[in-house]
Amino acid sequence: MDLTNILFYLAPMGSMLGLGFAYYFYKQMKKKSEGDASMKKIAMYVREGAIAYLRQQYKVVGIFFLVAAGLFSFLAYYLKVQNQFVPFAFLTGGFFSALAGYLGMRTATDASARTTHAAKHSLNSALQIAFRSGAVMGLTVVGLGLLDISLWFMLLNWFIDKQIFGLVIPQVERYHFITTTMLSFSVGASLQALFARVGGGIYTKGADVGADLVGKVEAGIPEDDPRNPAVIADNVGDNVGDVAGMGADLYESYCGSILATAALGVAAGFGLKGIILPMVIAGLGVVASIIGIFAVHTKEKATQKELLKALNKGITLSAVLIFAFTFLLTYLILPENMGVIGSILTGLVVGIIIGKSTEYYTSSEFKPVKDVAESSQTGPATVIIQGMAVGMISTVIPVVTIGVGIIASFAFAGGFSSIGKGLYGVGIAAVGMLSTLGITLSTDAYGPIADNAGGNAEMTKQKAFVRERTDALDALGNTTAATGKGFAIGSAALTAMALIAAYIEEVKAGLKMAGQTVLKVGDKVIEITSANIIDFMNVYNVHLMNPKVIVGIFIGAMLAFAFCAMTMRAVGRAAFAIVLEVRRQFKQIKGLLKGKGKADYASCVKISTLSAQKEMMFPSLMAVLTPVVIGIILGIPGVIGLLMGALGSGFVLAVFMANAGGAWDNAKKYIEQGHYGGKGKANHKAAVVGDTVGDPFKDTSGPSLNILIKLMSMVSVIFAGLIIKYGDIVGKVGEKIK
Amino acid sequence: MDLTNILFYLAPMGSMLGLGFAYYFYKQMKKKSEGDASMKKIAMYVREGAIAYLRQQYKVVGIFFLVAAGLFSFLAYYLKVQNQFVPFAFLTGGFFSALAGYLGMRTATDASARTTHAAKHSLNSALQIAFRSGAVMGLTVVGLGLLDISLWFMLLNWFIDKQIFGLVIPQVERYHFITTTMLSFSVGASLQALFARVGGGIYTKGADVGADLVGKVEAGIPEDDPRNPAVIADNVGDNVGDVAGMGADLYESYCGSILATAALGVAAGFGLKGIILPMVIAGLGVVASIIGIFAVHTKEKATQKELLKALNKGITLSAVLIFAFTFLLTYLILPENMGVIGSILTGLVVGIIIGKSTEYYTSSEFKPVKDVAESSQTGPATVIIQGMAVGMISTVIPVVTIGVGIIASFAFAGGFSSIGKGLYGVGIAAVGMLSTLGITLSTDAYGPIADNAGGNAEMTKQKAFVRERTDALDALGNTTAATGKGFAIGSAALTAMALIAAYIEEVKAGLKMAGQTVLKVGDKVIEITSANIIDFMNVYNVHLMNPKVIVGIFIGAMLAFAFCAMTMRAVGRAAFAIVLEVRRQFKQIKGLLKGKGKADYASCVKISTLSAQKEMMFPSLMAVLTPVVIGIILGIPGVIGLLMGALGSGFVLAVFMANAGGAWDNAKKYIEQGHYGGKGKANHKAAVVGDTVGDPFKDTSGPSLNILIKLMSMVSVIFAGLIIKYGDIVGKVGEKIK
Repeated sequence: MDLTNILFYLAPMGSMLGLGFAYYFYKQMKKKSEGDASMKKIAMYVREGAIAYLRQQYKVVGIFFLVAAGLFSFLAYYLKVQNQFVPFAFLTGGFFSALAGYLGMRTATDASARTTHAAKHSLNSALQIAFRSGAVMGLTVVGLGLLDISLWFMLLNWFIDKQIFGLVIPQVERYHFITTTMLSFSVGASLQALFARVGGGIYTKGADVGADLVGKVEAGIPEDDPRNPAVIADNVGDNVGDVAGMGADLYESYCGSILATAALGVAAGFGLKGIILPMVIAGLGVVASIIGIFAVHTKEKATQKELLKALNKGITLSAVLIFAFTFLLTYLILPENMGVIGSILTGLVVGIIIGKSTEYYTSSEFKPVKDVAESSQTGPATVIIQGMAVGMISTVIPVVTIGVGIIASFAFAGGFSSIGKGLYGVGIAAVGMLSTLGITLSTDAYGPIADNAGGNAEMTKQKAFVRERTDALDALGNTTAATGKGFAIGSAALTAMALIAAYIEEVKAGLKMAGQTVLKVGDKVIEITSANIIDFMNVYNVHLMNPKVIVGIFIGAMLAFAFCAMTMRAVGRAAFAIVLEVRRQFKQIKGLLKGKGKADYASCVKISTLSAQKEMMFPSLMAVLTPVVIGIILGIPGVIGLLMGALGSGFVLAVFMANAGGAWDNAKKYIEQGHYGGKGKANHKAAVVGDTVGDPFKDTSGPSLNILIKLMSMVSVIFAGLIIKYGDIVGKVGEKIK
Repeated sequence: MDLTNILFYLAPMGSMLGLGFAYYFYKQMKKKSEGDASMKKIAMYVREGAIAYLRQQYKVVGIFFLVAAGLFSFLAYYLKVQNQFVPFAFLTGGFFSALAGYLGMRTATDASARTTHAAKHSLNSALQIAFRSGAVMGLTVVGLGLLDISLWFMLLNWFIDKQIFGLVIPQVERYHFITTTMLSFSVGASLQALFARVGGGIYTKGADVGADLVGKVEAGIPEDDPRNPAVIADNVGDNVGDVAGMGADLYESYCGSILATAALGVAAGFGLKGIILPMVIAGLGVVASIIGIFAVHTKEKATQKELLKALNKGITLSAVLIFAFTFLLTYLILPENMGVIGSILTGLVVGIIIGKSTEYYTSSEFKPVKDVAESSQTGPATVIIQGMAVGMISTVIPVVTIGVGIIASFAFAGGFSSIGKGLYGVGIAAVGMLSTLGITLSTDAYGPIADNAGGNAEMTKQKAFVRERTDALDALGNTTAATGKGFAIGSAALTAMALIAAYIEEVKAGLKMAGQTVLKVGDKVIEITSANIIDFMNVYNVHLMNPKVIVGIFIGAMLAFAFCAMTMRAVGRAAFAIVLEVRRQFKQIKGLLKGKGKADYASCVKISTLSAQKEMMFPSLMAVLTPVVIGIILGIPGVIGLLMGALGSGFVLAVFMANAGGAWDNAKKYIEQGHYGGKGKANHKAAVVGDTVGDPFKDTSGPSLNILIKLMSMVSVIFAGLIIKYGDIVGKVGEKIK
């Protein structure tokens, strides 16, 4: 056993450490008091609603997973276009992601009232509870993700060693087999993420918009008012959207980037070393995150800036640590290619720049949001136009950053001498960016906890100073949510890029499974064992004058828009269902509006849950089926074109929607702070229109696009064997014509 | 002289015929009376404003052209990375496009009052005047475009025959030289189109939104009210945006598709026949258009549907005729590849489907617009969300249609046996789609004439029946405008596609000019005379795993969004300038609002003109410079990636914006017809917000994207030689690292 084999154990160790600390933080939080009876009651409503939602969601998704696993078994055991481990790897990926979502949300809903209660004592203790409960989510995601990866790696290694299942694979092929199999585990995580993001996104904004339309606008009662029957559903929505949805999204990116990089490591000719490196970076990333989490604390009477500084201190510490760790790891594992250190650094820097750019375009401290607020003087139409323009122009910096990042990480890893090494560099940049996910996701999950704590304080009518403190924590949460979204999109783009590259490897695996030793298209022939990606691209004609590629790019670009259209309309319908129900309650429950009757919160929660489940199906199916349909019609070149088109257009559209939504949101808040006439005046009403439009932009459609661009690559990965055997109808017809 | 050489003269003959009939229609129109003094006065204001605008625009553009021609001369005569004809071909392309715009707009502004006056007598005579005046634009565009192409073709042929300028070119090379030179003539048309579309788009919506904001909203006076000082500017805007802008846009597509196809014909190995075929199709297309134009007439008391039928009859007749003509022409010229007939038919069908799809999503007769109107019940925010969703989902049919169209036209022309033939098929599909431009553009240019006739009737307080007739003509114009926009976008996409393919030929020409006989990149070498496009793509590594290509795609996708952001904000600023001026006049001119004072129309026209000129510069420069900058940094693969990314994302974005804007516009009109409470109620106000947002969507940013996707290809074409010699810094640095 050489050093690389020993170092591998850093991955499962990091994973266990993460899970251990998650448990520790959870136990610590549970020890605190949840406050008085009314606080407990509100918290219970939210918790029960959230868990009821997840239960319903997992029921639907469970059926979907079983059907999919059945289909994959058919592919593996009957058609033999996929290997026999895939159905199981797929299921574990989905299961662990679901488990992480459940644990994270359970913790978040346990923590909100405790945060409110702690705010009675001090700001710092409230911050500690909220943030460390967020850290439970962060550490659970990285812990379970890394655990699944480590276990499967050990398992597959062992199977091959023992020649179980007739696996007699020559050494040179085993790593290719292992890594391409493990990618299918990511498919499970991806599918889980799709439902969590889309369903959660529809839920949260359906409830929010519905509650606002009928509560604030029609009945004229404030936000978070207990008389509004949809208020609990709204609070539940924050959890299912921003905790479970965001968690599943990043779980997918995390695992996807590690596994894609591992597969690319084999293609780059790094062998075992290339596989192990991303895993151990992730393992030590967990350690760096935990240290960072402990570094977050604040003094009493901290200003907004000081609170943000407290969080940033933790994140920066983790980033510096992980950079030091990876330097050491690369030196030990891959000393012949120290350039990858540059790639990792690139990933870290790209993440920071995209986060900062998001902050600039969505924070009311800077010009763009102030411009949107100013445009409220000429009414809602100009608010919309201005916000759209801000969102669109805000795509420039992230795209240029990702572009420079791709070139730089490619070049650092030696891409100019070998494209395989270069693509490995892009993959490891994504791993680097996501290595500190343990702490960055904590700051994301912190947001809804603080938000719910504020809601709890509002509904239970806490004293002013308590609400001031929860408001301060909540405002901080809005900033972290915005930068978190930028980070999620940026990492999704790099991960998707790595996944598309890894798809080539999966195609090779599919060809081998079909018993081919050479790839022959037209009059071009190459050996399949060749690690030369360029040859593969050339034989398959994946160049930009191939009409299949071009049509794929067009369809991919369109798909992002169609997906947004569907999710936006889904929010509209879900909101309308809530509006009808709240109107019904206001009418039928006597004295409700006067604060005497008791609102039926559960029915709103139920309606939101059911409509989210119903509405998520169609867009999800479209995302899943399109790569298969395009593969059947246009073959491998069409699929790669589709993925690249969806990635390019989807990334830009996602940034646009997230930032436009963020800018509208904060422009409204800026006006509420007293600018341009303040709350309730015409300008404010114009800004509210922008905010309402922005809700599905930033919390449903935009974030769902992250999943779209990754999921389509993953679906293509798992169906690669099928497409090789049965796909490319156009090409086959063409051959006959010819 | 063989048959092909003789048939060529159909092109200049068609061109002369088109110009002849344009002159005839113009003279016929001028014979009619312009009505009474007040009608004449209004018409004069609009005419003077429009011509003042064009004069100012051509002054600015003229300087730009001279600078550009100087630069191209530098490239051609000093750096020798471009041939010596290019600066002149470039200038004539721009000049003829400008001339067509001037003549078309002159006619349109002459025709509006005459249409109003004719409406006093009969609906049919009003339709005849408006439509045939629109036909002046249509026939001038195709006539001048084809004239320029024919002249240059004859000229270059002659130069080479006589060996003037030391042009001793072997026969096999001459066609390559001629077609790649002629493409640069398209660059002139493209640049002209950019300024016409962007400047015109900013002008028209700046004036419209500004007039509405301060007139309708602040002062509470109706649209087209002579008390509003911006009313003339608004009417001028219709002409500069929809006549001059649309005309220049399609002039570019028309010439671009013919010239790109000619270049692809050489690459496909068709030689002279491949060059001549698109030209003669265009020539007979003019004849088919003229016959179609004569077929348009209507009975008195025609309903809206019957009017539309009258126009459609003419268009359908032209399409059937041109199909018969092309069958014959292909049989005579290219009998060995009759499949291109299928490609031409594909182009015609694609145009029809995209037009129909646009109608479905933007006409108030169908569900999408009704849904938008219905959403007005829950306020402006839901109107915006619903309209956005309609626009986004409306991209599906056009994209799938274009996709199927690309594959089909590729396959029909023999693409499966030779990629060169296939790309020729895509080019000739675009030519087919645009062959009846003479009549389709007539229906577009008809719109603003009818609109201005209505405005004239309103301002001069004509009797009710006159206004009813002009309203009927105007409503018809709105439908033709919507389908015309769909047609413009669809043809732009196919043309851009052909231009990108032709770019490869331009790169070959650039290599030859650099004295290279073989192309060598890395360890791959091919002969440059080779017609094999695939080899070229492979040697340059223009495949989807090349990071330069990927980054190009990302930047291209982003550019479309950034361009929209800039043009939208430009409209906002231009509108604000008008608001300030109108407010000033209301304040300073005594009795103006009571109908006693005299509004200073000219100052509003001047302000709109100046702000449009100022605002168009930055987005235009971005569009022009980006391909050059990307080429310098990332070389040929980066440029092709950029073009394809911009095409994919830009096409989808353009369809989205045009259709969302159209849906909002007609949802508002639908409510004004008495649905959901009718005019002036809360629902109507919500719909007005949508309409205002939609204005820059559908008339500025969306249409400008057509130009963006074509222009960037054209810019790349003209700088190909420069990029070959000085481009690809990343690659050069990479070589050193390696």
